[in-house]
Amino acid sequence: MMVIMQPGASRQQVEEVIAAIEARGLSAHVIEGVGQSVIGAVGETHAIPTDVLAVLEGVENVTRISQPYKLASRTFHPSDSVFPLDGFTIGGREIPIIAGPCSVESRDQLLDTARAIREAGANALRGGAYKPRTSPYAFQGLGEEGLAIMAEARELTGMPVVAEVMSIAQVEVAVKYVDVLQVGARNMQNFPLLRAVGETRTPVLLKRGISASIEELLMASEYILAGGNPRVMLCERGIRTFETATRNTTDINAIPVLKSLSHLPVLLDPSHATGHWEYVGAVARAAVAAGADGLLIEVHNDPAHALSDGPQSLTPQRFAALVGQLRAVAEAVGRQLAPLPVPVAAVAWDGHA
Amino acid sequence: MMVIMQPGASRQQVEEVIAAIEARGLSAHVIEGVGQSVIGAVGETHAIPTDVLAVLEGVENVTRISQPYKLASRTFHPSDSVFPLDGFTIGGREIPIIAGPCSVESRDQLLDTARAIREAGANALRGGAYKPRTSPYAFQGLGEEGLAIMAEARELTGMPVVAEVMSIAQVEVAVKYVDVLQVGARNMQNFPLLRAVGETRTPVLLKRGISASIEELLMASEYILAGGNPRVMLCERGIRTFETATRNTTDINAIPVLKSLSHLPVLLDPSHATGHWEYVGAVARAAVAAGADGLLIEVHNDPAHALSDGPQSLTPQRFAALVGQLRAVAEAVGRQLAPLPVPVAAVAWDGHA
Amino acid sequence: MMVIMQPGASRQQVEEVIAAIEARGLSAHVIEGVGQSVIGAVGETHAIPTDVLAVLEGVENVTRISQPYKLASRTFHPSDSVFPLDGFTIGGREIPIIAGPCSVESRDQLLDTARAIREAGANALRGGAYKPRTSPYAFQGLGEEGLAIMAEARELTGMPVVAEVMSIAQVEVAVKYVDVLQVGARNMQNFPLLRAVGETRTPVLLKRGISASIEELLMASEYILAGGNPRVMLCERGIRTFETATRNTTDINAIPVLKSLSHLPVLLDPSHATGHWEYVGAVARAAVAAGADGLLIEVHNDPAHALSDGPQSLTPQRFAALVGQLRAVAEAVGRQLAPLPVPVAAVAWDGHA
Amino acid sequence: MMVIMQPGASRQQVEEVIAAIEARGLSAHVIEGVGQSVIGAVGETHAIPTDVLAVLEGVENVTRISQPYKLASRTFHPSDSVFPLDGFTIGGREIPIIAGPCSVESRDQLLDTARAIREAGANALRGGAYKPRTSPYAFQGLGEEGLAIMAEARELTGMPVVAEVMSIAQVEVAVKYVDVLQVGARNMQNFPLLRAVGETRTPVLLKRGISASIEELLMASEYILAGGNPRVMLCERGIRTFETATRNTTDINAIPVLKSLSHLPVLLDPSHATGHWEYVGAVARAAVAAGADGLLIEVHNDPAHALSDGPQSLTPQRFAALVGQLRAVAEAVGRQLAPLPVPVAAVAWDGHA
Repeated sequence: MMVIMQPGASRQQVEEVIAAIEARGLSAHVIEGVGQSVIGAVGETHAIPTDVLAVLEGVENVTRISQPYKLASRTFHPSDSVFPLDGFTIGGREIPIIAGPCSVESRDQLLDTARAIREAGANALRGGAYKPRTSPYAFQGLGEEGLAIMAEARELTGMPVVAEVMSIAQVEVAVKYVDVLQVGARNMQNFPLLRAVGETRTPVLLKRGISASIEELLMASEYILAGGNPRVMLCERGIRTFETATRNTTDINAIPVLKSLSHLPVLLDPSHATGHWEYVGAVARAAVAAGADGLLIEVHNDPAHALSDGPQSLTPQRFAALVGQLRAVAEAVGRQLAPLPVPVAAVAWDGHA
Repeated sequence: MMVIMQPGASRQQVEEVIAAIEARGLSAHVIEGVGQSVIGAVGETHAIPTDVLAVLEGVENVTRISQPYKLASRTFHPSDSVFPLDGFTIGGREIPIIAGPCSVESRDQLLDTARAIREAGANALRGGAYKPRTSPYAFQGLGEEGLAIMAEARELTGMPVVAEVMSIAQVEVAVKYVDVLQVGARNMQNFPLLRAVGETRTPVLLKRGISASIEELLMASEYILAGGNPRVMLCERGIRTFETATRNTTDINAIPVLKSLSHLPVLLDPSHATGHWEYVGAVARAAVAAGADGLLIEVHNDPAHALSDGPQSLTPQRFAALVGQLRAVAEAVGRQLAPLPVPVAAVAWDGHA
Repeated sequence: MMVIMQPGASRQQVEEVIAAIEARGLSAHVIEGVGQSVIGAVGETHAIPTDVLAVLEGVENVTRISQPYKLASRTFHPSDSVFPLDGFTIGGREIPIIAGPCSVESRDQLLDTARAIREAGANALRGGAYKPRTSPYAFQGLGEEGLAIMAEARELTGMPVVAEVMSIAQVEVAVKYVDVLQVGARNMQNFPLLRAVGETRTPVLLKRGISASIEELLMASEYILAGGNPRVMLCERGIRTFETATRNTTDINAIPVLKSLSHLPVLLDPSHATGHWEYVGAVARAAVAAGADGLLIEVHNDPAHALSDGPQSLTPQRFAALVGQLRAVAEAVGRQLAPLPVPVAAVAWDGHA
Repeated sequence: MMVIMQPGASRQQVEEVIAAIEARGLSAHVIEGVGQSVIGAVGETHAIPTDVLAVLEGVENVTRISQPYKLASRTFHPSDSVFPLDGFTIGGREIPIIAGPCSVESRDQLLDTARAIREAGANALRGGAYKPRTSPYAFQGLGEEGLAIMAEARELTGMPVVAEVMSIAQVEVAVKYVDVLQVGARNMQNFPLLRAVGETRTPVLLKRGISASIEELLMASEYILAGGNPRVMLCERGIRTFETATRNTTDINAIPVLKSLSHLPVLLDPSHATGHWEYVGAVARAAVAAGADGLLIEVHNDPAHALSDGPQSLTPQRFAALVGQLRAVAEAVGRQLAPLPVPVAAVAWDGHA
């Protein structure tokens, strides 16, 4: 940590900062500038908030030099984290595509969509049973019934399933049904929830908050990792900016930045990041070209009748065409799409064994 | 709702939009523009998501005309909501000041601070027992013990107490100790939590999310109001923008905008909105001049040793001076600071009965 | 400047940074951290771009400690800059109000408005002769004819006049007519224009760019000051954020921050900062309470027929009521509104000599 | 245009809006909603500012339905604009790469870099002779001498040259030397400058302002097109957001959005959009995958000694490697890099004829 003193800070103020640094078991090193001093605090600083020095008299501000996260950092874990899901790995050379509807609306809707995306080339199935909705008057999801339908879809198609949880009680239920727990953008800093998913041994897909910095995303992953769960996937899904032409602004820069700072796999969700199905393909291709380790794409068997997120959902036909394009881009950057899952009940699922 | 068709949308596409509108019990009215049509959907639209029309073929976008919130809206509740807390009211002519430390750190720290701010002119006491911290390695609060200390401070000073809750389990505990439940910025869209506080009959102080729009803040309050709890206070606390000279950017515009859209009381927290105690006074005065119904100010008996938020905390002395300034500004805009609470144990608390 | 090395930077990379620092006449001071070094560069750094060190091998980033501006800084000019305009001063205890229409639309419109705002309590007249318009198809202003009408209004009312310039050629014309040259938000980093107004001896009102940081605003003022023109007024006019309920977001924090960093007078324009006349009063009062040295307010004699900015313009009646409120707030914070100008032709201007 | 009336607007207010619409030669169509009316204004609305209706009594807001730009719109010009530069075309199937240093620093530096990037696969040369610098104390460019060096580099390498202009006077000089005039981000709304380049017949590369919306970028291009110059290239170069891990946030969404709204070619500048050479490759690949029509990349023969933008400049070696990757991505999306230029003096430029 570097403590920047105000111009004209007194000798005594500098001494007090040095004392405060040393009181925390760090060593202090002063650089006398032209009318302004800087004091370096050297030692194990990542668990010390900058506030406790910034508050002292004569201090202008305090800058952290080393990262405030550790378990998520590439410095302490140089090689990529690669971990298996059913039938494929994430974080390595293979790029899996997770697809499915925003919400589980009914058994028919989900199973139809699951079959169609499996056919089109998806590796895993997403679907929401508990839905965070801006309006209390909107459809809020099927709850545990929805999770059971997700599990049925896994049986049918062989694809692992991903569903969002919003509270500790939902975590307890969801771990019985799903392969990956999703923490949504609105809950990226719901710390009790992060602790709860950190205590499970189910992989976690952690979405970036709509206005979370990259560092805050990594700190949120640190909560999960510190709880003992090492299988965390980060997911860029667009940030809020002044631009209103799209629902959010895809922060494509975040992909190389996260890959450089952290060993965790990085996914991108082009559906939320753009909000319009017309733009999903361009941004999905861009993500793969930029180095993303996977994609999360909304696909609905009948978007025109979706209860939520219809405008950003692809039809299975458009999704199938996109998978072909993604395969070409993946190869152009020296990678490949993940192999398709083998359905548990292969003879049954497509009805013509 | 207005459905804007793409230039060149076909007659059949227009017909299908009309059918979808009518299928939801609304009536459809078409305006044929120059090469582009607009279809008005008239009726009870606030519970219908725009998505379900935006997804149709040939639709460019869908704009909501009437507000998506109802209980929070001034249209349906024209007069200001005014409700009592211990010894004063909020939402009317009186302006209460809620002050106290970021965290309850110890019994001595809290009781000292409580006495000092009561003396300086505060009307209520804030303090955190459960702390949302960006880092899993930072101080996380004293939990229920902290709440008990808050309750003790109320006994001593007569001031009602405000504390943050972050999970449903914490709500169940906190209602036994505190007078106002605070929902923090990070949880403004934690919908299970909003439902939980909506089911209590304890007043709620709802802080605006760091990147929440004014409409989203009102929709979040709608969750609480729809749960049956009418006593909601809104609190602007700074939004995230590109400017880094201050911790957040105070959206002072939000005060007149919220007062115009909603009947709920509107507070401002200049401590988080600026992040530096030097700027707290200017922004607190601005809030009162702009029409805020109350203030939430961080004060610590010894900021230099605070475990969190020291740099944005006022000392009791600086706070006392600020209260005097706020009194003058309140009178200049035709209002007045709320009367000081009468301590339950008046003879005891200041040590000289 | 502090050069932060990457974790694991080599000894040789550190040496090369030291050599580069010394080659620029600065001295280098190394602090060896835990796995990461920091090198302080001490000396006259304000004219050295951080880029030239950031580019070196092994460097993570470079942080400036001292401010990159000098003439605008309070460090080098501790007392407030106070300078006279016709009949009042700016930057001291007096708070002038500059009012008038967005555009000079006609002689009658401007003279009517000028008389009305003078009567209502304005100290100076604003009006645009050259208009920056987003659309090439919108009204672009009357040009030099508009400036001549402004000068006529000054004769009539005694109020100094303020008008925007957008190019070097316009500066050459405008100095013959106006008392204050305005550089608009879109041109805050039009460096040839800043140099041109810096070469005049006419006071300059410099508006903050819609997404300019506070530091960039001060650097822009540095261009003018470095040109030899010391009479610069800074003007906050709202920044662009994600919030769409108002045209811009007033950065009220900028007022105490600018007053603390710089000696230059700081104004606020609540009309552009909100975009709706209903909110102008609240934000104008807030600005005075926060310590602004002046206000810039759009007033039109007939907003319903204004060629531009009608929705954010006050009528003269509403403006007069606001001036009364501002007087009360100014006194509550220990200041006062500037005294009204004496018209040059006092007998004539109100038509009843 | 749709005029949304306030809830409870009177019959007379509605009539007055209708009258104002009809007075502008448009026809008015009223939709009576539940407690709120909407009035459609049909006709040639693109040159009518929304302000003139928004200001009327009882109006809540006014929404534009059709685009405010015309010449830039795909609605009026459905097929892509394709135009030739020396040796290649832009806007069609070919993707040209424009590369070069931030500034022309010296004859040797520019000619060396030009040779190296030509060898590595660039199609055109960029370089700044007039530099917009935040600080008045920083290197401001070589001016006309720099332009002459650019012209010499074209002779030597056969590559057309691109240079920025910041004022009308610079336009007059630059057209004598360069093949493409660049309008930089800070001048995107410098309307006198846009008119000046619109009066030339030199192609214009128009960079998006750091906080300009996509619609504002298209309106800026409309100024140039309306001046009679049809050869405009749009360039996304990163927008300003809250994220500080990179210099700007690349708005990758802008590529498909601009391609859908406009027929003009769309380029991306990954150097400014990220600010760090390490991230340039990932974002350049993403741009091609997303459908960009060209790239603008900073390359310096010796970044460690660059006078500006060193940290975001590639070395010629890294640039050559990137060109190979871009070729593969372009082919994966069905396009190809533009063919290399033939130097005018082919025998001479590489010294071994």
